[in-house]
Amino acid sequence: MHIYDLPTPAVVIDIAALRKNIATMSEVHPGRRLRPHIKAHKCTGLAAELEAAGHSSFTCATPREILGMVAAGVGNDFLLANEVVDVRRLEALADAQEHALITVAIDSEETLKAAEKAGIHNVMIDVNVGLPRCGCDPKNAGRLADAARVRGMTVRGVMGYEGHLMMVTDRDEKKRKVHESMSILATAHEDVGGDIVSAGGTGTYDMFAGTTVNEVQAGSYALMDTHYAQLGLPFVQAMWVVGTVISSHESWSVVDVGLKSLGMDHGSPTISGHSVWFCSDEHITFSPQDQTPRPVVGDRAFVTPAHIDPTMAMHDTAYVANQFGEILAEWPIDLRGW
Amino acid sequence: MHIYDLPTPAVVIDIAALRKNIATMSEVHPGRRLRPHIKAHKCTGLAAELEAAGHSSFTCATPREILGMVAAGVGNDFLLANEVVDVRRLEALADAQEHALITVAIDSEETLKAAEKAGIHNVMIDVNVGLPRCGCDPKNAGRLADAARVRGMTVRGVMGYEGHLMMVTDRDEKKRKVHESMSILATAHEDVGGDIVSAGGTGTYDMFAGTTVNEVQAGSYALMDTHYAQLGLPFVQAMWVVGTVISSHESWSVVDVGLKSLGMDHGSPTISGHSVWFCSDEHITFSPQDQTPRPVVGDRAFVTPAHIDPTMAMHDTAYVANQFGEILAEWPIDLRGW
Repeated sequence: MHIYDLPTPAVVIDIAALRKNIATMSEVHPGRRLRPHIKAHKCTGLAAELEAAGHSSFTCATPREILGMVAAGVGNDFLLANEVVDVRRLEALADAQEHALITVAIDSEETLKAAEKAGIHNVMIDVNVGLPRCGCDPKNAGRLADAARVRGMTVRGVMGYEGHLMMVTDRDEKKRKVHESMSILATAHEDVGGDIVSAGGTGTYDMFAGTTVNEVQAGSYALMDTHYAQLGLPFVQAMWVVGTVISSHESWSVVDVGLKSLGMDHGSPTISGHSVWFCSDEHITFSPQDQTPRPVVGDRAFVTPAHIDPTMAMHDTAYVANQFGEILAEWPIDLRGW
Repeated sequence: MHIYDLPTPAVVIDIAALRKNIATMSEVHPGRRLRPHIKAHKCTGLAAELEAAGHSSFTCATPREILGMVAAGVGNDFLLANEVVDVRRLEALADAQEHALITVAIDSEETLKAAEKAGIHNVMIDVNVGLPRCGCDPKNAGRLADAARVRGMTVRGVMGYEGHLMMVTDRDEKKRKVHESMSILATAHEDVGGDIVSAGGTGTYDMFAGTTVNEVQAGSYALMDTHYAQLGLPFVQAMWVVGTVISSHESWSVVDVGLKSLGMDHGSPTISGHSVWFCSDEHITFSPQDQTPRPVVGDRAFVTPAHIDPTMAMHDTAYVANQFGEILAEWPIDLRGW
């Protein structure tokens, strides 16, 4: 099967580009220094590529992501880097503890109690390092860790996501701000104890020299998107949503990739050599730039999403292609939903 | 089961509000005067409510939507109001023609040929009435209809989607522009023939008096969103994404409804009585307004999406609730994907 045989819209991954990105990151953060984030793709097939490159510890955003990874037998150390108070879901995670090391982030008495009630053994203290979202006030981190230990839990360390700094474009300014955030995390770590100091993302992955951070939670780097591409990182685009041109006119053409198949929170996608006019539910209206010939009905268009994570979550299959456009594998996007 | 027992994020539909919206629209466009658009919810359970209110003809955006409706036995007359050149998918539609009246929109020689090759019997000429997307140049509509008839197909009429006018806020200006668009469609209809003149959406549903339009393709009115709510239409919000507060701080709280569970192309969602700060993949950071008390961890939050269609497409189940919050039914969102 070839890319040109796929029903569209279809997620296509360039296997060489994916492996290049994985290798580039593994060189900076080999093995357990990287805790790749599964939420960026929700795909155990892709996670198996990360495992083959030496990574066995993973970050997950939902209990379902962890349960799916355990069921697929990929990885052996999972961090739920998100707060959950749904005891039934935490119980399902607790049941999986006999198969893998599972650690749950907590940032409050309530999340601690839910984890305890469910029988979770390992927790991580999630610390606010500047992003107004989850994470406890740093000054409460030690107390929360003590409360977990009193309940018989193992506290593996701290995590803090500096998500507010991902898109800072000036590298010196970014490095200074990341170090400020990480010094908050380091101070909290002194109060908390444990072996792990976990932080970071694709936008800050190379900013941790001179900090106490010992694992990085990047995920988007594997497939990339136009948003992260703005930063000039050494990762290449490895995924597109391939569509079919279904209507073509003098001034514009229409491809069957719409906003139901694209994460739109970072704006419209791009199509190389073309201008994207707007997205509808099932369509992109676009037109050629300069020398690019006008598309005809039946042509394929390769759409680069602005945000990879939600885009992957909208599809049920990723088609893995080689440089000739041959389809080598179909990876179910098997970890989506909640 | 109660709303407060649901795993979150969860799509909840207020059955009374849904039925009120359906009744309000049915009064203006009863029976086959309305061809409700399935793409707005992708849910045969909801479609069955529309059928119970007297509507048996439906608009669909994808072959899968039609095939799912036929399989569920809801409706008997389906319009694929979108261009498709994938012959395999059209063949699946052709196979379903023994169970239901199926009509496929075409706007070019290529889409006509694909429909012919697949064995589609009925087509509708999709005419550009001002939105730069699909739809043929009005002056080519008659020729395309003739070409279809030469191939032995039945041409049921014309459709034209005036999507560029949905959000015009001045009603007089909107009415004038809709009538301009519909006069283009009427002229094309004279060239095309057939019984049907199909157009419209939730934003223009009451603008067709004095035009030749004889069926309206509205869909979003059934559940509504904050985008259409700006127009002051007589439809009420009937759907929310219910979340659980998972983290709460002095200045902000966090609910587990993020941009992977919300269509974001029309911007951020709203939470009544609160200010939404921003959305992340799995979170909304928000804070109470004025007299609203600060949420505590474990509270439920009712999130109103900015765009209903892509939001529904992200979920696999809609929970149907009464005014007491009791869950009466679980409707699979069974028509998503492609």
